[in-house]
This record gives sequence, C-alpha cells and structure tokens, in this order.
Amino acid sequence: MENNIFELQYALDTFYFLVSGALVMWMAAGFAMLESGLVRAKNTTEILTKNVALFAIACTMFLVCGYWIMYGGEDGLHGAVPFLSGITGDGVAEFEDTYAPSADFFFQVVFVATAMSIVSGAVAERMKLWAFLIFAVAMTGLIYPMEGGWTWGGKDVFGLYNLGDNGFSDFAGSGIVHMAGAAAALAGVLVLGARKGKYGPNGEVNAIPGANLPLATLGTFILWMGWFGFNGGSVLATSSVENANAVAVVFMNTNAAAAGGLIAALLVARIMFGKADLTMALNGALAGLVAITAEPSTPSALQATLFGALGGVLVVFSILTLDKLKVDDPVGAISVHGVVGLLGLLLVPITNPLTDDGGASFMGQILGAITIFVWVFVASLIVWFIIKAVIGVRVSEEEEFDGVDISECGMEAYPEFIGTGK
Amino acid sequence: MENNIFELQYALDTFYFLVSGALVMWMAAGFAMLESGLVRAKNTTEILTKNVALFAIACTMFLVCGYWIMYGGEDGLHGAVPFLSGITGDGVAEFEDTYAPSADFFFQVVFVATAMSIVSGAVAERMKLWAFLIFAVAMTGLIYPMEGGWTWGGKDVFGLYNLGDNGFSDFAGSGIVHMAGAAAALAGVLVLGARKGKYGPNGEVNAIPGANLPLATLGTFILWMGWFGFNGGSVLATSSVENANAVAVVFMNTNAAAAGGLIAALLVARIMFGKADLTMALNGALAGLVAITAEPSTPSALQATLFGALGGVLVVFSILTLDKLKVDDPVGAISVHGVVGLLGLLLVPITNPLTDDGGASFMGQILGAITIFVWVFVASLIVWFIIKAVIGVRVSEEEEFDGVDISECGMEAYPEFIGTGK
Amino acid sequence: MENNIFELQYALDTFYFLVSGALVMWMAAGFAMLESGLVRAKNTTEILTKNVALFAIACTMFLVCGYWIMYGGEDGLHGAVPFLSGITGDGVAEFEDTYAPSADFFFQVVFVATAMSIVSGAVAERMKLWAFLIFAVAMTGLIYPMEGGWTWGGKDVFGLYNLGDNGFSDFAGSGIVHMAGAAAALAGVLVLGARKGKYGPNGEVNAIPGANLPLATLGTFILWMGWFGFNGGSVLATSSVENANAVAVVFMNTNAAAAGGLIAALLVARIMFGKADLTMALNGALAGLVAITAEPSTPSALQATLFGALGGVLVVFSILTLDKLKVDDPVGAISVHGVVGLLGLLLVPITNPLTDDGGASFMGQILGAITIFVWVFVASLIVWFIIKAVIGVRVSEEEEFDGVDISECGMEAYPEFIGTGK
Repeated sequence: MENNIFELQYALDTFYFLVSGALVMWMAAGFAMLESGLVRAKNTTEILTKNVALFAIACTMFLVCGYWIMYGGEDGLHGAVPFLSGITGDGVAEFEDTYAPSADFFFQVVFVATAMSIVSGAVAERMKLWAFLIFAVAMTGLIYPMEGGWTWGGKDVFGLYNLGDNGFSDFAGSGIVHMAGAAAALAGVLVLGARKGKYGPNGEVNAIPGANLPLATLGTFILWMGWFGFNGGSVLATSSVENANAVAVVFMNTNAAAAGGLIAALLVARIMFGKADLTMALNGALAGLVAITAEPSTPSALQATLFGALGGVLVVFSILTLDKLKVDDPVGAISVHGVVGLLGLLLVPITNPLTDDGGASFMGQILGAITIFVWVFVASLIVWFIIKAVIGVRVSEEEEFDGVDISECGMEAYPEFIGTGK
Repeated sequence: MENNIFELQYALDTFYFLVSGALVMWMAAGFAMLESGLVRAKNTTEILTKNVALFAIACTMFLVCGYWIMYGGEDGLHGAVPFLSGITGDGVAEFEDTYAPSADFFFQVVFVATAMSIVSGAVAERMKLWAFLIFAVAMTGLIYPMEGGWTWGGKDVFGLYNLGDNGFSDFAGSGIVHMAGAAAALAGVLVLGARKGKYGPNGEVNAIPGANLPLATLGTFILWMGWFGFNGGSVLATSSVENANAVAVVFMNTNAAAAGGLIAALLVARIMFGKADLTMALNGALAGLVAITAEPSTPSALQATLFGALGGVLVVFSILTLDKLKVDDPVGAISVHGVVGLLGLLLVPITNPLTDDGGASFMGQILGAITIFVWVFVASLIVWFIIKAVIGVRVSEEEEFDGVDISECGMEAYPEFIGTGK
Repeated sequence: MENNIFELQYALDTFYFLVSGALVMWMAAGFAMLESGLVRAKNTTEILTKNVALFAIACTMFLVCGYWIMYGGEDGLHGAVPFLSGITGDGVAEFEDTYAPSADFFFQVVFVATAMSIVSGAVAERMKLWAFLIFAVAMTGLIYPMEGGWTWGGKDVFGLYNLGDNGFSDFAGSGIVHMAGAAAALAGVLVLGARKGKYGPNGEVNAIPGANLPLATLGTFILWMGWFGFNGGSVLATSSVENANAVAVVFMNTNAAAAGGLIAALLVARIMFGKADLTMALNGALAGLVAITAEPSTPSALQATLFGALGGVLVVFSILTLDKLKVDDPVGAISVHGVVGLLGLLLVPITNPLTDDGGASFMGQILGAITIFVWVFVASLIVWFIIKAVIGVRVSEEEEFDGVDISECGMEAYPEFIGTGK
C-alpha cells in the first residue's frame, strides 16, 4: 500500500516533468518563428536552418558530454552516465529517485537549446551558418554545462568558491540560461560587427524591418506558452500540496509578468514613438518572462505583474541604447535575455531574501551574475576567435547583400513572393 | 497516509488545472493567427497588436478587479483577494480547497481573454487601436466579470433573480464566454459601421479575401487544441473515476463536434457555392466547438458530432444573413460565437435536462441567454459610445484605405511582399 | 482507501491518455503546415482544405465504424460500441478498465488521422479535392482499421495467421501508421502520375521549391512535439514506477532520434549538395522520429540518436531514388514514412529481441511489414481506381497550371502576394 502511494507520486512527478519538458522543447519553435519573422526575407531559410540544427546539436551534445559535465561526478545526479548505456526501472532503487531519471534528463536537455537559441537571433543576417553550428557544439557541450554545474549542479567555480553557499539563487535561469545565452551572443556580435547599412556614417540608426510579423507574434505566443513548462517545471516536483501550490503560483506569476511586460513596453513605445509598436510589445512580453524567471514562486501576482512591467520598460531603453553603441542585434536578444536577465537576478532578494532556508542576497546575485557573464563571455569570445581564424565567421559583402539564404542554404524561404529588394 | 492520498489528489487536480489553463492561454495565439490570416495584409500588424495587448490587459484587469467581481464577496471563492497579497501553502487549509487556489485563478484568467478575443476579429480593419484597448479594459474588468458572477459565480442578477436556480446551465461557456464576446462585438460593429467598399450601393456584398490562409488554418487548429483545455478543464476536477470519465468524455465530444461542424460546413458550402470553401470549413469547425461547449459531458460522441454539424450548418447561413443585414464582421466572429453560442445553450436540455441534481431547462437557457446578451450588449454599447464621444472609434477614410498598420502601428506586417493594392 | 488509490491511478492514466491524445491531434496542424509550406502558393488553399477535412473525416469514420472494426468483436476492447450510445461512469465496472474508455477512444481516433495525413502531401498539387476526401473515407473507415485490427487489435489476418504470435512488434506504429500511410500514398501517386514539368524529357528532375519555408519548419516542430504524445502515449499507462520510467525513456529517445536524424540529413546533404539544405534537414528530423517509433522504449538514448541518424541518411537517398524512378512525391512523404517506417520495424529486434515476454524477430517484422504493405497498397489501389473510374482523380492540365486553389476551392491562399508565376 505504501508502495502504491510512492508509485503514484513517482508517476505524477515524472509525468509533470515530461509535460514541462515538452513545453520547453516547444520554445525552440518559438525562437525559430520569432527570429524568422524579424529578419528580412532573404535571410529566413538560414535562420530557420540554424534554429532546427542548434536544437538537434544541443540535444546530442548534452547527451554525449554536457549532462555529465553539469551534474556528473561523485556528488552528481545519477552519476549522469547511464544515458549512454540505457536506463531501466532497476536504476530507480539505485539512484533513490522520486521520479524517472530519463524524465530529468529530458527536462534538462531541452533547456540547453534555449540558451543557444538566444544566440542565433543576435548574430542573424551576416554570420556563416557552419561557424554558428560549430559554436553551438562548444556552447552546448562545454560552456553552458560548466556554468550550469556551478549553479544548478552545486559545484565549486573552478574549485575556488561556491555560488549557492554565497547567497546566489536563480530559480529557472534568468541568469543561468538567459543571461548566459546573451553573453555568448554579445561576444559573437562583437566579433562579427554590425550588418551593412544598419548604422550610417553620421551616427544614424537605420530600421531594418522584419519580413513577417505574424510569425514573430506566433513565436512570442509559443515562447509564452512554453515558459509555463520552463518555470513551472523548475519546481522539480508537484506531488505534494506544498509543491502543487508552488507550481500553480509559478504558472500564475509567469503569465502575470508577461502581461505586465507587454503592457509596459507598449505604453513606453507609444509615449516615445507615438505609435503602438508591435515588436516592442512582443519584446516587452518576453522581457517580463525573463524578469520573473529567476524567482517566480515567491512574488504575489501583482508583484509579478510589476516585475514584468519593469522588464518591459527596461527592454525598450536597452534596445535603444545598444543601437546607440552600434551593437547590432537584429531581434533584440541581448536586451531581452541579457539586460533583463540581470534585472531578474537582482529582483530575487526582494521577495526571497537570504535566510537559513535558502533565498538570495544582492551580493550573492551580483557575484553569480559576474561569474556567469565573465565565464560565458570570455569562453565564447575565445571560441568565436578560433572559429574566425580557422574558417571565418562572416559571409562576404556580396553574400550579405544577396542574402545568406542563397549562399548558405541554396534556397529561398519565399521563392514566389517578390521582394522589394530592401 | 490519508494525508498522502489527499495530497496526491490535490496535486493531480492542480496539475490538470494548470495544463488546461496553458491550453486555454494557447487559444490567444489561435485567435491572433485566425484573425491575422483573414484580414488584408495592410491591417495585419494592428490586429496582431490588438490580440497580444488584449490578452495582457485581460490578465491584468482580471487580477486587479475582475476575479473579485466575479467570485468575491461573502459567498465567493477564496474571498478572491489573496492574489494581490500572495498565496502560500498556508492558505490551503484556510480555504479548504482541493486544489491550488492559484491554479483556479490561472484557469479563470485565461478564459477572460477568450471572450475579448472574439471582439477583435469583428471590428477588424477600421477601428482605432486605442479605442479597442480601452474597451478591453472595461470588458475584462467589469462587463464579463459581472455576468460571469451571475452564472459561474452563483450571484443573483442585480439582486433580482438567480440563473442557476432557474434551470440555467452552461458547462464551459457557449453563452457566458462566446455569446458574451459576440454581444460585445455586435455592439462594436453597430457603432463602427461596415468597412468601406464591403457593401455596394445596389445591395451587393463584396468579398474581401484574407491575406494569409495558412495562418487562418493554423489559428483554427490552435483553437481546436486549446479547446480541450477550455472544455476539459471545466469539469474542474479529474482525480476520481467519475471525474476522470467526465473529462475523457469531454475531450472525445469536443473533438467529435469540431469534426462534425467542419464536415457540415464544407458540404453546405459545396452545395451552395460549388467549391470547397476553406474559410467556411474553418468556421464550421469553430462553430462545432462553440455548439458543444455549453454541454460536452452528457452527449454521446455521435450526438456531439451531430450537434457540431448543426453548428456548422447554422454558421454558414448566419454569415450570409449578417452580410445581407450589412453587419460587417470580417472574420465571422458574431456568427461563430454568438449565433452558434445561443444554439449551444439551447441544445443543453436535450442531453442534460433539468432534474434535482442539476441540468438545464429550455426556459432557463432562454432566460440566461437573454440576461447575458442584454447586459453585455447594452453595457458594451454604452462603453463604445463613451469611447466614440471622447476619442472616436473609427480611423479616417484615408487611414482605412492605406491600412491601419501604418497609421496605428507605424509598421507593415509584410514589408517585403508587394501587395496588389487591393 | 484501496479504492482511493485505484481512483487516483485511474485518473492519472486517463489524464495521461488525454494529454497524449491532444498532442497527437496537434500533429494534424503539423502536417498541414509542413505540406502547405512545401507546395507552391497556387496549391496552398487546397492542401490546407485537405488537411482539415481529412482530420474531421478520420475522426467521424473511426467513430462510426473504424474503432469497431479495429478493436470490436468478442475479444475486442470494450466491445467498441458504446461510443455510439454514450459512455458513463457506470461503464467502468463493466469493462473492468483501468482508465476511461473515452480516453482510449480519443487517443486512438487522433492516430487515424496521422496515417491519412501522410497521403495528402504525396498527392499534392494535382489531385482532385473530392477524390482525395472520398479516399479518406475508405482509408480511415476500413483500410487502416483492418490492419490496425491485425496488429494492435490482436486479430488474425483474414483468419489465416496472427502477427503478434509470429514475433511482430510495432510499439507506436512505424509500420502500422506511417508505412501504412505511405503505402496508400504510393498507390495514389502511381494512379495519379507526376506533376507537369517535374520530370523533363531527358531524364532531368526539376526542383519545384515550396512557397513558404517558415511554415514547413513550424510544421516539423509541431510534429516533433506531437510525437511525444504519439510515442509516449503508446506505453498505454503511466501510473506505476515501471510505466513512468518507460514513458520517460520514450520521451527522451523520441527527442534523441529526431535530433540524430536532423543532424545526419543536414550533413549528408551538405556533402552531396554543398549547401545546408533546410528541407532535407526537416525530413531528416521526421525520419528520425519515424525510425524510433517502432520501438522507443528499449534503446539507450545514444542508440536512439544513432537509429534516428540512420533514418536521416536513408531519407536523403530515398528521396533522390524516388525522383529517379519518377515517383513524384512533393513533400517526400513516401520516403519519410514508408521507407524509414520499414527501417524502424527492422530495427526493433536489435534492442527488443523476441523472448517469452514479447519483443520482435526479424522474420516477424518482415512478415508484418509485408502484410501491412500488401493490404494497404492493394486495397488503396482498388479504391483509387474506382474513384478514378467514377469521378476522376486528376485535375485538368489547365487547372494544374493555374493552381488547384482556384479550381477546387475558389480562393487563393495569398491573394495579395504577387507570385512569380512559377
């Protein structure tokens, strides 16, 4: 009888992980649609190819080595090796798990791709496809698993200090996933340079509108939906009253923050530009989601709305500021995931201050943010430079002018819809 | 031990609510894709903006006041106030809930946006964006919560009579959500008037084809999928054999009704127009879904198919009739959600007649339908007139001719695909 | 108390079935987007119509007779008749079920449409719409349920032999669903002939690019996501530790195989064509999914990746070979689902060899594959020929040149985007 109750709890927590993981996997489609909607028609096939390929690479690299780097070792979860040799029901007793080990792996593996998806948007429209895919191998096989090990994996940072012991807390990854992705993206953008024509000789910033806004909107909705799995699944269990309440609060707050971010960005853009700027509204919703991700379980729904709104305001100013600095990020990924990811980390201590039971301190969050950023940025920069030296990272000027779809993929995304030649 | 079983039941019902709510949230994407596929290219950015913004507004207004109006008060669920001050596990004992209060709020809050999404399609291509968004505030913060309180909230209608006591039953909202949304839409359309060129001087009705039918089809599939959460979640619990069976029947019947509606509309359109009319087929599927929504748990699957088919036939004739009356509804929302919503209400007593255990009577359904329609229509009309008086509801003729994307949003949805100038 | 644990198990397994079924239903949207993205703009409305209509027809025909043919009879599940007369909680004790009968029906009914969706892509751009829909009636009401009865239904093949007794095993339908759909498609393509202009007089194969690659990519992501329900739900229960582990392994391996297939196809295409071919990568992911579907529960994650990769390599060569044979399949459905479906069947004995507890032998798999293929191919051929004789299967040359959207549906999919006249 006792056993039956354990089995049901085990089954429910496993199913919850799998549903959450399927929703996170779905975010890959969201990034693909968002980014393909925000680039020009001539660069659409290539960004779609990047998005599907990076997801596949992330899943494979994390299987081959990433999961082991992040969670493996003496203290590591499950030893992290059985995935290469198969998992059976027998493994359960051995690992003393309360849910299926494969469900944990599935949930973790789809997270990795999220970090990498952030990069693809920022380097769009001028990077060589294969340079990007080689970077994806390094990012998902080494760079992300290392910092994931220092945080969720509980490992010391190069044996020097432990983030968790120093008041760092990042519930679902505002810093660990989103800011990390943005740091890798920033390194890539700095190595690549801006798109031709984006910044004029006299300091003017030229708008390069996306080719397909319904796709961008669909992508945002997909990400919004998938985020319920991203944040909701990060409670890691749901089969008790306490955990069920936590998961429910996370769903409620995730939604509230997205709503707050969208409204705030829409209003700020209205005030600044005089129009209802759809792309800013979409980025506002995503910023709200990123802002709440570091701690969606302790704020009230109203606080979540306000934290999201703060993210929505910040993202508008961040996008404008990066353009002034001539950091060319076609989809605003560095602002949405990086700048607002940092905000998310800094908001944690407000509703979840450091106590004996956990929580975060401002100093701990800053230490964690610096650790993640410096590691990912520097490691990424090194990888980007190596790639640049060996095969180059940027397409030729002519290829960029004609669009990377033809040069990299050999096919147009919309061969029958005549473009204006923009 | 007893506690463990209670905890598992609590956890399963909570998780079921959250998954259902995520599917209902997903319907917002469905409406956005459906509507943006059925309008012209020049009005696409604006309808996308409306759809994302109304969802965010609905979530925020329902949090701030709508949930309290609908369920609050002495007899109300949870007092409906804790969402402003945070919900913790401690609240559970207090409220004597069998699932997480936040999960209930999450499920309810995503419903609100559905009612409002219905409006956006009907007033497409000529309404001012901000007029629409202000109406969304009133609709989601007051108009819908009031009638929702009279029905699902169990409150008396202005202290006069109680719908539930008079044989009214609306399982998942054919009337409470769909017909209510259509009533608000009808009021808006009457205040707005038809699009320029829709109706000729000699009574001719000019077809204005949608710009992107794959999007409209995608939107219909999204709505179909989301409806499993909409209807399935409305059983409100799934952790017993009886409830699990009910939820399963609801899923089966929801799917069957959509299938019946689609086939019926396709055949009727084939007979009347000689072609397989995709947009009619899509509206037929949606009509089937709306028709079954008032009672998806008592019909057999075959009855559900037939009820859906009835909705599919009705929607074709309703769309044609509204055009004869020069009620210009670009996406057919008033027919799908309003006319078929009423049908759904009237079908309930056939399979779920009034008994001591509940059910519906025809008189009760008619009373309920009149109450909902009159309240929503009159209240909406007043709000639309106030908005018209203060800031105006309709764009200028020139803006309408050029498309509202430029005037309201400052950006085109498909800047590179040359339009035919239709 | 005992009863409560049974009720929770019943409720959890039912909910798991319903969530899985909703994901499989979602695959219908995936096929619709994939196929509409890979055809030319002028044939888009028609393929969308086919996809929505076939789903509705499949659901209705399986309700009316298919489920009874597949599972009915003395030994059949539930007698398979209650769906016509309604299912109540009372039915449970009678059937001694461990989950809701309606949930089983719901999960099965959405599977049927998958088989039929495979056909629509292969016969795209030149088949009469109503010929296709009539075939859908025969396929979903008779042809598929017959072979489904011989396999999952456990019935003897025309009373002659039993596949299960002869070492045949097909977990989620690499053969039963995917190869079956491809067999029907192949019959249709042979009756129809190739599209005008596809094959030149001197043996040259002319590429006919799809009109909207973001849609094709979205469709692939939708299918990938829906496949978690397709394979994951096929464990048929999740409420014990053993079943929960199996479901988790299936999710993990389904994802791994898709990733492996995508990477392999991308690399093979790169080597052969010199470019990163997006449509090959998408077909590679789908091939990986089809390859793992016959047995996703016994391989390790690494094996699943390799099996998927094998599918990804095979699909590229199969597509090229079919084109050499002038078998014109616009979306590659016969290769993805048929050739790789066979591969999936043949891979089963490697990780799940025949023992007293089940499993598969190579001979059993070959016998099953031949049985399924011969039945579906021959029965389909007969139906296609009857349809051809009575109403014809192919549109006129002029209609094909102008696009079937106008002739069959009376409306263009993208009326405002000027085509290049390709």
